[in-house]
Amino acid sequence: MLFHGLSAFPITPCDAAGRVDTGALSGLIKRLDAAGADSIGLLGSTGSYMYLSRAEKRRAIEAASVCLGGRTPVIVGVGALRTDEAVALARDAQDAGAQGLLLAPVSYTPLGDDEVFEHFSAVAAATPLPLCIYNNPGTTHFTIGQSLLSRLSVIPTVAAVKNPALPAADIVAAHQATLSAVPAGFAVGYSGDWLVADAILAGGATWYSVVAGILPEPSVKLLRAAQAGNRAEVARINALFEPLWTLFRELSSYRAVHAIANVLELSPYDPPLPMRPLSQADRPRVKEALEVLTAV
Amino acid sequence: MLFHGLSAFPITPCDAAGRVDTGALSGLIKRLDAAGADSIGLLGSTGSYMYLSRAEKRRAIEAASVCLGGRTPVIVGVGALRTDEAVALARDAQDAGAQGLLLAPVSYTPLGDDEVFEHFSAVAAATPLPLCIYNNPGTTHFTIGQSLLSRLSVIPTVAAVKNPALPAADIVAAHQATLSAVPAGFAVGYSGDWLVADAILAGGATWYSVVAGILPEPSVKLLRAAQAGNRAEVARINALFEPLWTLFRELSSYRAVHAIANVLELSPYDPPLPMRPLSQADRPRVKEALEVLTAV
Repeated sequence: MLFHGLSAFPITPCDAAGRVDTGALSGLIKRLDAAGADSIGLLGSTGSYMYLSRAEKRRAIEAASVCLGGRTPVIVGVGALRTDEAVALARDAQDAGAQGLLLAPVSYTPLGDDEVFEHFSAVAAATPLPLCIYNNPGTTHFTIGQSLLSRLSVIPTVAAVKNPALPAADIVAAHQATLSAVPAGFAVGYSGDWLVADAILAGGATWYSVVAGILPEPSVKLLRAAQAGNRAEVARINALFEPLWTLFRELSSYRAVHAIANVLELSPYDPPLPMRPLSQADRPRVKEALEVLTAV
Repeated sequence: MLFHGLSAFPITPCDAAGRVDTGALSGLIKRLDAAGADSIGLLGSTGSYMYLSRAEKRRAIEAASVCLGGRTPVIVGVGALRTDEAVALARDAQDAGAQGLLLAPVSYTPLGDDEVFEHFSAVAAATPLPLCIYNNPGTTHFTIGQSLLSRLSVIPTVAAVKNPALPAADIVAAHQATLSAVPAGFAVGYSGDWLVADAILAGGATWYSVVAGILPEPSVKLLRAAQAGNRAEVARINALFEPLWTLFRELSSYRAVHAIANVLELSPYDPPLPMRPLSQADRPRVKEALEVLTAV
C-alpha cells in the first residue's frame, strides 16, 4: 500500500548556494508524520529536486530516514536528464533508506516513447524499490499517454502512476480509461491539489499533494472525507481551501508553499534562483488564506 | 561582428559516461574553421550542453580554444536551471577562452518574465563577454516575447538574439517586428536550418546552424548565397539539402547529425542516454541525403 492515500510533498529548505538545511527539513517531515500522512514524497517538484546536487539530495534522504525511523515510508524523486544519473540517484535513494521511487521523464532534447521506456526500464532495474511513474507534462513537457503507460506498467517494480488530475466533469472517464490500461492492483493516483478531491471520489488511489507537505492537518481531513465518499464534507473543506487554491493557480503552488513555510516560521529560505519568492504585496493574501483554513 | 554570419554548432563527442573526447571535438572544430564558419557555437543544444558536467564542459571549451588559437571566435552555451550555476558556467567559459556566451532560459518549474530577466541580468553581469539570448521554446519551454526581449536587449553586454526561424510567408514581418523591439545594431539571428535561408534573405544577421556543425562546406555556400540575395542559388542549394531537412524534421536534427558524424567517421559516439541513436533502418537514408549534397 506504499502508493496509496496521502503522499505529502514537503519543500526542501536550502540556502542560496543549494545547501539543504536538514534541521528545517526534519521539522517539516515530523509535522507530516504526526498529522498522519500515508507517505512522504521527498524531492518532488515541490522539493526542488531538479535544482539540487546529487550530494545534497542524498543528505536530504538520510535526514528524512533518520527522523521517520521507518514509521512512514519515504518516496524519493530520482528524475534526471541523463539515464545514468537517474540510475545513480535511485541507488542513492535505496542506500539512504527510501521505501519507494518517483521518476519523471525529464527532458531537454524532446524524447520519444521508446526513449522514455528504456529510461524507465534502466532506473526500475537499478534497485528492488517500487517505482511510481511521475506524469507531469507541466514541468517535464513529455506526456505519458495510455500506450506508453501500458508498456511501463508491466515492468517489474513499476507499481503506480501519478497523473495530473482533471476537472470533475472529465475525471471519472479518464480514471476508468487509465485503469483499463494497467494491470489489476496498479495504483493510479493524482496531483493538482485543487482538483484531487474529485479524483479520489472517482476512485483514485493516491493524492500526491503539494499542500499536504506544508499544511498536513486540513489536507488529511480533505482526503479522508473523499476516501469515505462524503461529498458534503469534501465540498465544505474544499470551500475553505478555495482562497489558497486561487493563490496556487495564480502564483504557482511551488512559490506559494515556500511563502507559507516562511509565514509559519518553518523555513526562512526562498526558492532557488531563478525562481523568485512571492512579492511583499502577495504575502498578506497567503496569511488570509491560512486564516480561512483554521475552520477546517 | 561576433554574432553575425554563420555560427556552426558541432556535436560534443562523448562516451557513455559523459566524458568528452577532446580529440574528436577538435577534429570537428578544425573542419568548421577550415570551411570558413564565422563562429563556432560550442555546447549548444546540438552540443548536448544540458547533459554534460561542468568539468567536462570546461574541458570542451579549453580544447576548442587551443585548436582555434583565436582565429575564429567561440560562442559557448552556458544555460543551467540554477542562476548560480549559469553564472559559474559563464565565468568558466571566459576563463577557458570563449569570445561570447549563449544563454537559454532553461526551466523545470515554469518561469515568469521577471524571473528570466533577473537570471539573464546575473549571467550577463558575471563576465564582460557579449551574450546572445537563446530563444528556443522547443527545448526550454519558455518563449521570450517582444516585451521581455526589449528589456533584455538593453542590458550591457547583451548583444544578440537567436530566434526560431519562421516559414517564408511570416519571416519578413516577424523580423521587422523584432528589429523594432531592440536597439540599433542588436544582432537578430535565427536557428531552424531548413527555414533559415529565407530568414537571412529577410535581413537576419546570423544563421545559428546545426547542419553547419557537421557539413560546413555546403552550409557556407547556402549562407553566402542568402547573404548575397541570390534567390536562385539559395533555391538550388536548398533543394539539394531537402532530403536532409526531411530527416531533420522527422528524426530531429540532433539525432541526425550524431548519425552523420558516425557515417563520416568523425565521431564513433552515440548521443547520451536517454536519447537514442538513429536506427539501422534510418541510417541508409542519412547516406542518401549526404550523397545528394555532394552536388552543392
